Amino acid sequence: MPTYKAPTRDTRFVINELLELESYGNLPGFENATPDLTDAIVEEGGRWAAEVLAPLNQVGDKEGCVRHDDGSVTTPTGFKDAYRKYCEAGWGALSLSPEYGGQGLPHVLGIAMEEYLASSNHAFAMYPGLTVGAVSAILAMGSQELKDRYLPNMISGKWLGTMNLTEPQAGTDLGLLKTKAEPQADGTYSIRGTKIFISAGEHDLSENIVHLVLAKTPGAPESSKGISLFIVPKFLVNEDGSLGERNAVSCGSIEHKMGIHGNATCVMNYDGAKGWIVGEEMKGLAAMFIMMNAARLGVGVQGLAQAEVSYQNAVTYAQERRQGKAIAGRVDPSAGADPIIAHPDVRRMLMDAKAFNEGMRALILWGALQVDLSHKAPDETARQEADDMISLLTPVIKGYGTDKGFDVAVNMQQVFGGHGYIWETGVEQFVRDSRIAMIYEGTNGVQAMDLCGRKLPANGGRAIQEFFKLVDGEIASAKADPQLEPIASRVEKALGEQKAATLWFVQNALAAPNNLGAGAHHYMHIMGIVSLGWMWLRMAKVAAAKLAVGTDDKAFYETKLVTARYFAERFTPDAGALRRKIEAGSEAMMALTPDLFETA
Amino acid sequence: MPTYKAPTRDTRFVINELLELESYGNLPGFENATPDLTDAIVEEGGRWAAEVLAPLNQVGDKEGCVRHDDGSVTTPTGFKDAYRKYCEAGWGALSLSPEYGGQGLPHVLGIAMEEYLASSNHAFAMYPGLTVGAVSAILAMGSQELKDRYLPNMISGKWLGTMNLTEPQAGTDLGLLKTKAEPQADGTYSIRGTKIFISAGEHDLSENIVHLVLAKTPGAPESSKGISLFIVPKFLVNEDGSLGERNAVSCGSIEHKMGIHGNATCVMNYDGAKGWIVGEEMKGLAAMFIMMNAARLGVGVQGLAQAEVSYQNAVTYAQERRQGKAIAGRVDPSAGADPIIAHPDVRRMLMDAKAFNEGMRALILWGALQVDLSHKAPDETARQEADDMISLLTPVIKGYGTDKGFDVAVNMQQVFGGHGYIWETGVEQFVRDSRIAMIYEGTNGVQAMDLCGRKLPANGGRAIQEFFKLVDGEIASAKADPQLEPIASRVEKALGEQKAATLWFVQNALAAPNNLGAGAHHYMHIMGIVSLGWMWLRMAKVAAAKLAVGTDDKAFYETKLVTARYFAERFTPDAGALRRKIEAGSEAMMALTPDLFETA
Repeated sequence: MPTYKAPTRDTRFVINELLELESYGNLPGFENATPDLTDAIVEEGGRWAAEVLAPLNQVGDKEGCVRHDDGSVTTPTGFKDAYRKYCEAGWGALSLSPEYGGQGLPHVLGIAMEEYLASSNHAFAMYPGLTVGAVSAILAMGSQELKDRYLPNMISGKWLGTMNLTEPQAGTDLGLLKTKAEPQADGTYSIRGTKIFISAGEHDLSENIVHLVLAKTPGAPESSKGISLFIVPKFLVNEDGSLGERNAVSCGSIEHKMGIHGNATCVMNYDGAKGWIVGEEMKGLAAMFIMMNAARLGVGVQGLAQAEVSYQNAVTYAQERRQGKAIAGRVDPSAGADPIIAHPDVRRMLMDAKAFNEGMRALILWGALQVDLSHKAPDETARQEADDMISLLTPVIKGYGTDKGFDVAVNMQQVFGGHGYIWETGVEQFVRDSRIAMIYEGTNGVQAMDLCGRKLPANGGRAIQEFFKLVDGEIASAKADPQLEPIASRVEKALGEQKAATLWFVQNALAAPNNLGAGAHHYMHIMGIVSLGWMWLRMAKVAAAKLAVGTDDKAFYETKLVTARYFAERFTPDAGALRRKIEAGSEAMMALTPDLFETA
Repeated sequence: MPTYKAPTRDTRFVINELLELESYGNLPGFENATPDLTDAIVEEGGRWAAEVLAPLNQVGDKEGCVRHDDGSVTTPTGFKDAYRKYCEAGWGALSLSPEYGGQGLPHVLGIAMEEYLASSNHAFAMYPGLTVGAVSAILAMGSQELKDRYLPNMISGKWLGTMNLTEPQAGTDLGLLKTKAEPQADGTYSIRGTKIFISAGEHDLSENIVHLVLAKTPGAPESSKGISLFIVPKFLVNEDGSLGERNAVSCGSIEHKMGIHGNATCVMNYDGAKGWIVGEEMKGLAAMFIMMNAARLGVGVQGLAQAEVSYQNAVTYAQERRQGKAIAGRVDPSAGADPIIAHPDVRRMLMDAKAFNEGMRALILWGALQVDLSHKAPDETARQEADDMISLLTPVIKGYGTDKGFDVAVNMQQVFGGHGYIWETGVEQFVRDSRIAMIYEGTNGVQAMDLCGRKLPANGGRAIQEFFKLVDGEIASAKADPQLEPIASRVEKALGEQKAATLWFVQNALAAPNNLGAGAHHYMHIMGIVSLGWMWLRMAKVAAAKLAVGTDDKAFYETKLVTARYFAERFTPDAGALRRKIEAGSEAMMALTPDLFETA
């Protein structure tokens, strides 16, 4: 059976030493986030997730969710009880709005906890995870009445939320939605249509489910400009807040999926269900993006989370499993064979994972801080800068983070040899579960186009120029330290490739937009490499400074320096190859007519 | 439901136009392999696999194999009937020894058929596939008596074979085997021990199962030098060839796996089973390698096979599914959305798959021809050269072929968006099934060490120098043609990276062998890229020549030229990045003590 231990030491390193959260004590909600408190939350949260949720992960995979004839859905054994404990402990409310009962702590802490939840049990974590997006949308766009009616119970966890976007004919292309919202005399809407792939669409965890549903009002144009967002509760809510009659929304079936079996992926039927508009008619896309951006960051976290838990299990196996003799000399000559962690190719896979995981964790928590700053920083410039950064990096965190997170899980499975292919070992589940993160909340191809087509050119390239400035600054400062110089030089080279690729887009994509589409996915990966390289430079600098003044925890900081070097040596070279692919353009890629792809 | 059509046009292109099989008419077994005959076999074999086996692929995944209380195993619905038809049609005997009832046709044809079988139904194809390895070992090392007793029925398919290597404590490291073989007065051996992960270890397809089992005789040294190979039939075979009593070998359990559910992966218990030695005592490793090399080529074929079938399904979906509007201008302005094949990022994934599949098919069939030539070429030099080439390329075909084959399946799943994650679509099964190929018959890390530690330095580097000469020659000839020059230049650059990496190993691996281990996997990938680049150069040359003289099938050859260009543009750049990773050496990779990998 797989095991899990929350990487709390590393989380605390990022929060306290890298981001220096304490220095933001002037922001609302941060005043209480002293290192003592954040350490206590991180440690307790990590312990809780590992103890309560991790043991249910294989159970969830094996049992899956069951839909009954009446349309109700039962979650796997133990999920309901664990969810009750989750609400009682208040884990879901950590960084949510204090106005509606949340604890109002920094988003950084909520995201740290999300990692532990998703490592312990991806399928379980999705239930409260989706609610976060729904809450964001209601907070930003909902009327005061809707906020008062829904947010307190959603933040306490009493009610869970969903996001209803996809329909059979409308996935990425929301302009194709057919679900209709007919205005009623009482100001509500009657919602009719079918939604598919609705995660947590129906279940037995919470007493109500608050569906956020995209639909079209009469006369809306046939494009994404015509969509509106509605709240459609499973049970109507009475004036006094108690639950009323059942709404006309039901689960038609649940999907048989590759993974995340413990989460109910539903076909949802809306048969004249009563809905309340969130914001204005035909302004649904903006509300949807608020919900979506929160969700995308959360999906990036899932990429890291599956990489981390699969890494931990592979490390244990590699330390214990003995096969072959180390080529550079026996490690344990008294035994018949050495532990496989002595073999360079096993090390390669483990170091790749370690370098990705720790770099990604730093980037994600840095990103979460930008979310906080974009709302709470005292001056407008700082808020805008933070907003620019998180808008720019969200598709990178989601796209690069989940592509690589899956790769890491696959490599960790490889460490186990044949045992990795067996269900009981548990690592093949990590591969199957992590695979979805590359697909949902916008496929990684969509993330790449969001990055290159929307985020790069926004405001005349203001965000990407600011990003270059930040990374340039870190490189310049690191190059002054002989210990960090070799790492900085490699990150500098990768950054140079990104700048060249950016310039190539500017020069070649306007006249031929396919050149942008043909290189977008590669560009997203270059930017992922540069972003992690930047984080590794910052982490190496902190580690070098600690070691210079002396520390009790020497091994931790020395390990950071080794891993930073490994990252620089083994991740940055790909940036050059990716740039060359981008510069090849779209001609050969787009030359064939569709029929020529068919097998003859 | 997924569909499959055997890529017979492309197979015939490789056999007739690229390899010019007809020109080897002087070799035994090739005299009959005229284009007419090979075309007929390829077409009929492809049709048969697609019609009979492909419809059973999802059935096999869903039902799996069932072990009953008496230790017997039932295969999924339809497998038994399909296997009977397979034997009746003689598909298994295509390229096997005519001395024992095989058709003796070129190995090239047998391998072409193996691709179709594995694309149609990977789990099914493993049953006869493993028998090929067992037959090779008996043919090469068995006594005349064993050959006469077992080969005719194994070649006809009446009996199936297995390979019993792995034990709980002994995977890659066969020196750790504990299974014992005690010599008996009658010249047989009594075999005791437990084998795990035995594919097709027990089933209901054939009336007997011929296990090839590695075990140690008394006093054998504790290393792979001490192992011997035995035939252990499920039912003893009487003097007259009829089946006698049940041998003391049984299936203890079957594994729950990530994929290939239709194949029974067994724990096999040997409780004093009667065994016959194949070759001499303690010479089992050589026999095992004969069996293994045949199997490794077959596993490389599986990598291609899963990539091909997943590609075909993704193409169909990409042509039919409509989402979004093409950025370079609408393809079908009359509809609400364009087919997703119009989007560059979808093209990128499809072209990556197409370029890999066709390049890999050429490399594999070329490899199969080397197997033929290594046995049948009239002069010793030609036999040795062919043997050098296939020995060198086998780990590349297995390791690179299955790493990339899996990547392609994952990307093809991505083309389907959310639908790709659903079981019914079928593509997630291709991902799960293809994953095993990176693991079994020696993990890809083992392949990389076989390539770099054994095959590169063998005979003073004779094989790799010959490989460089072959690729150099092709590049020089292609550079003379202005149409091919841009492709040739890119392949030349990649070859330059491989030569540099080879030299770096020579200069840096002797003193510090970890430098070899640290770069081996990357080197295997560089060599995969160069090998496919070489094949693409050869294919482009054939296509250009056809187009120059005029052809009815212009689109086919023009598509080859476009795909060759795409390969050169999008695959070769990675060679440079991989070389830089190799040249980073093993220092950072090996710096940490094993405990420092643990999560704190």
